[in-house]
Parts: sequence; C-alpha cells; structure tokens
Amino acid sequence: MGDDMKDMTSLGLKVEAGRLWILDQTRLPDEECWVEGGDPAAMVGHIQRLAVRGAPLIGVAAALSLACFAASGASESRLRSACAALRGARPTAVNLMAAMDRMKAALDAGASSQDLVREAEAIFEADVELCEAMASRGAALIGPGESALTHCNAGALATAGIGTALGVIRRAFELGRLRHVFVDETRPLLQGARLTAWELSRLGIPHTLITDSMAAILLREGRVQRVLVGADRVAANGDFANKVGTYGLAVQALHHGVPFHPVAPWTTVDLDCPDGASIPIEERRAEEVRGYGGRLWAPEACPVFNPSFDVTPASLVTSLVLDRAVLTGAQLRE
Amino acid sequence: MGDDMKDMTSLGLKVEAGRLWILDQTRLPDEECWVEGGDPAAMVGHIQRLAVRGAPLIGVAAALSLACFAASGASESRLRSACAALRGARPTAVNLMAAMDRMKAALDAGASSQDLVREAEAIFEADVELCEAMASRGAALIGPGESALTHCNAGALATAGIGTALGVIRRAFELGRLRHVFVDETRPLLQGARLTAWELSRLGIPHTLITDSMAAILLREGRVQRVLVGADRVAANGDFANKVGTYGLAVQALHHGVPFHPVAPWTTVDLDCPDGASIPIEERRAEEVRGYGGRLWAPEACPVFNPSFDVTPASLVTSLVLDRAVLTGAQLRE
Repeated sequence: MGDDMKDMTSLGLKVEAGRLWILDQTRLPDEECWVEGGDPAAMVGHIQRLAVRGAPLIGVAAALSLACFAASGASESRLRSACAALRGARPTAVNLMAAMDRMKAALDAGASSQDLVREAEAIFEADVELCEAMASRGAALIGPGESALTHCNAGALATAGIGTALGVIRRAFELGRLRHVFVDETRPLLQGARLTAWELSRLGIPHTLITDSMAAILLREGRVQRVLVGADRVAANGDFANKVGTYGLAVQALHHGVPFHPVAPWTTVDLDCPDGASIPIEERRAEEVRGYGGRLWAPEACPVFNPSFDVTPASLVTSLVLDRAVLTGAQLRE
Repeated sequence: MGDDMKDMTSLGLKVEAGRLWILDQTRLPDEECWVEGGDPAAMVGHIQRLAVRGAPLIGVAAALSLACFAASGASESRLRSACAALRGARPTAVNLMAAMDRMKAALDAGASSQDLVREAEAIFEADVELCEAMASRGAALIGPGESALTHCNAGALATAGIGTALGVIRRAFELGRLRHVFVDETRPLLQGARLTAWELSRLGIPHTLITDSMAAILLREGRVQRVLVGADRVAANGDFANKVGTYGLAVQALHHGVPFHPVAPWTTVDLDCPDGASIPIEERRAEEVRGYGGRLWAPEACPVFNPSFDVTPASLVTSLVLDRAVLTGAQLRE
C-alpha cells in the first residue's frame, strides 16, 4: 500500500511492514516483550500503564499509532476522536500534546492517510535528530573524568533516538570525557533500576545503582560532578516538571555546589505554560507506593501520596540543554 | 529458678517464663512471627538480618540474650566470647556496644548469672524510661496543629519503650498538638512503609506514606512543619549517623526552613567518637538495592552502592532531643 509506513526502529518502538510495535517497558529488564500499538485505543492503554513511556517517546508512539489507524482506513471522525483520546492519555508531558496537535493540524488541513503517515514518520525522524543535537551540546559541557548522576530514564527508551539526559551521557562517554554514571533507582516505578541500568549495561558504560536517598552522600563526598535529568514539560520561565524526585535532587545539587542540568528537546517546551505552578501533575494509584509489581509491603489500606512528577524551579537550574541552545540559569531568568 | 528473668514485654521483644522472644521485623506487616532469642549465636544472626533492629532495641536484645545464656549455665569464658560476638554484630549503632560493655563490666566485676540477669533487666527498664523522657521533652517542641515527617522506624519497634522520634510523635498526638505524620518509605529495606506505617495504624495516628523522593515536595508546599528522626550514633560534636536518607532529608529541611530534630537517648551518644567522619558505616548486600525481599528488578549483576547509614553534620540540626535535655544546634557547636 502506498500509505504504508516505512520501517523504522528505536530501542523501544519499531515499525515493521506497516505494523507498529512497542517494547513493553513494564516488563524490562526481565523480558523483552513487544506488543502491537497500531490501534489508538490500545495505545492509550499502553501509555497509561507505562508500557510505553518517556515524554518524547509517547508523542512519537501516539503519532505513529494514529498514522497506522489512518492507513487502515479509519474515517476522519474516528481519527479525530482517537487523536483527542491519545492527547489526553497522560496530563504532564507536553510532547504528547504537541505531537497530537501537529497531527490534528494535518487533519484540519485535509490530510490524506498518506499525508498522516508521512507526518508521523517526520515526528519520529525529527526526534532522532533532536537527540543528536542535545547530545552534542550537552557533551560539550562535561569535563574530562567527570562522573554524572541521573534520575529515572531519559535514554533511548524514552525517545526515538539516543535519549535526552542519557544521550548526553552516552556521547560524553564515547568522547572519553565521562567516567562513571550513578543511577537513582527512581521509586516508585523504578525506571532507573530497571531501564537506565539496563541501557547503560547494553552500552558498556560503567555505572552504579543507588536508592534515591543515597544521592546526597555522593554529592557531599564529591563523587558526582554533574546531575543530568530529562524533562516532561518546560514552562516559559524555565521551571520544569520531571519524574518525582527531580526537585529534591536539584536542591541537593545546589546545596553541594554541583551543576544541575535538565536536557530536553524543544518539543518539551510549552510557551503557553507561564510557570511550574501551571503544569498539571498526574497523581497515580496508591498501590505504586504501597509496593511494587503486585508485591505489597505496606499495610494494605495505608494512605499514600503519589504524584508522578514534581516541578523544579528555574532558579535551581545551572543550564538547560536544548537541541538548539544551552540556556544558562541567568538566561532562563531573563 | 532464682536467676530466671522476670516477664517483660515491648512491641518487638518479650521475656516470658524466662525465655526471650523477638518479633521478626523482616516479616512485618504481613506476619507477626516471634522467634527465640535466648541463644547469643542465634541472636547475632537475628541482629544481622534485621529481624531485631533499631539502635536501642538491639542493645536491649543483646543484653537479654546474654542474660538468658548466663541463666542457662554458660561458663564465664563462653559468656565472654558471646558478649564479644554480640558486640560486633553490627558496626554503626553504638547502643549495642554500650550495652555489651555494661554486661562485660559486670562480668569483670565477678557477676553471678543472677547479677547478669538483673543487669539486663535494668537495661530494658532504663530504655523504657529514656523513651518517656524523650517523648516529654520532644513533644514540648511541637506547636499546635503541626504535621511531622519521619524517616525509617524510630518507634516502639526500635526500642523497649514507645520509641525515640516516634515516641515524640505519639506523645505530641496524645497531647492534641500533632495533626498528621508523613512517613518516608525508607529504601532499601522499607522500614517506614512496613514498620512505621504499621505502628501508626495501630496507634490510630493519621499518616501518609510517601517514597523518600517525595519529601522535598511536602517541605516546599509547607505541608510539614517538623522533621523528626532517630539516631544510631551521636558523635561528641553533635554529628550523628542514622538510616541512609537522613542526611538528604536534613539538607531538604534546611533549604525549606523546616526544623530538623534527631531524637536519641544518652546511650546513643558516643563521646569517644569525636565527629561524624569517625563513625563506621555498615555497607550491606547489593541485593537489597537490586530489589526487595527476593524479588529483583534491576539487571542481575548491576553494580550497587549500599551504605546502610549516612552521617548528618551537627550544622544541619535545629536541636537534638535527648532524654536529659534538648540541645540546640548552637549548644552542640559549643
């Protein structure tokens, strides 16, 4: 078919013979299990249960899912409602909304299914390029022999390319600058322990896993020279939302005089959002804090607070690494 | 028998008809399972695998175990070697060493088995009284309507009495001052999620469980007016060791202007230890960070850093609540 998508592969997502597959990230690192993502209703579920995750990747995955739906002959009205459902699947990361707004604009302009396929392919390919640009700009900040600390997973599993913060780390390692990476396990869903440790192991980059509460020790002992994290939404004033625990890490970095950098593509920047207080923060199920993966260790009915993200003010940012520029804290505050 | 111990009960330890039992804290809150502790070799194992834990409680448990051994007719040389083995079971908490030094001094003075039993009983009873004194002094610091944040378990499960930090919380709640308690889950061994949440639930004190990485959000939002933690060893200059994560929490409290208080009995103070850098920090198995309770979620061979404790400098302490006095940061620094 002329409007079949071309084959494309990233670490967590692939298109093969016109079919879209995602790597179920909830089952990593124990199993590498691919599930189909070409049906938008199924994709909404995959996004909500975090089978596919990472601010850039969920935007790419949603666009490709909608394109598959178009290629399968879905009517314009069904495409429009699928587009809206995908857009609302998770509230915090703005990349999903940006990708869906781009697809909707194409629909509004009377796009054919082939046009929608080309648009989704372009979103995928642009994300790969954005990662390369962030990696180059970010790696230039890293001094020889540095060790970095990262939180959650901002790697190839979170994007269509080599990652945001972890892309910088990878490039700096390849250039012989970065020596070691410390990885916050990132409770409650353990994306650091499960996903970042797995990626770093595949890449052969020396790393050490810690609980989130141990980061302060490393910073105090001078064992970490730089903190690099991803972002789910950057507000117009430079405040940004990222996986819960990022804000606390930024406070620790400030206290210990260690540079702190969010790394994000321009698709993560939301100029319509004036500041961090305006970013909606998703709260998730109590069971995520009461235990992990079906094993509960807290008392059964234990009350829980479970925000999935927190907001770090621009005042704690040493510099923001974007694909187009590195903005210092002072520039952000202008 | 004349040298049988009298019956004594605390939440995590009991003497009944001359036999010593400990509540296996590794199995809480799922099961309340009591195991015998009268054999010192077994008690060393219980202490090392954290079946019995909490700086004050392991001192009490070790003394009672040695007393049981004496009452069973063990020779002086076997008592001396058991005393040394118990003393070395864990390196960080000084209460264990203080209790064993007290038992050894009795042996050196030619104590009979009955004398050793009375000495261990006195250690138990003194710990109960110390908790009461800390609770009274600490509760007086709490303003009406405050919410507190605590880390790990510094409660009745960690002492022979009502606890250190959690004893203060309990007393302040009974006095109608404290409104709510936020509980850090305390990775890797989840003493907050498993033990503190269980204790607070039994006491009917309103509480909310969070991951350790969420504390910073609560502090920033003004939802916590005071941080109360236990201590495993307080050095002569006021630096103190406590469960890993305490230091980071102290930094967060400072950044957000929230008072931070370690709570400890004088048996936790080690005047022979000049400062925090001189406190030995136990490192534990990598599996504790790679997962929990036999379920591993990180890659199998993932390198890990796993210090069981960290050191908080006196400069971050608002005041230290002891049984005999409340010492301000300025007094500590004198």
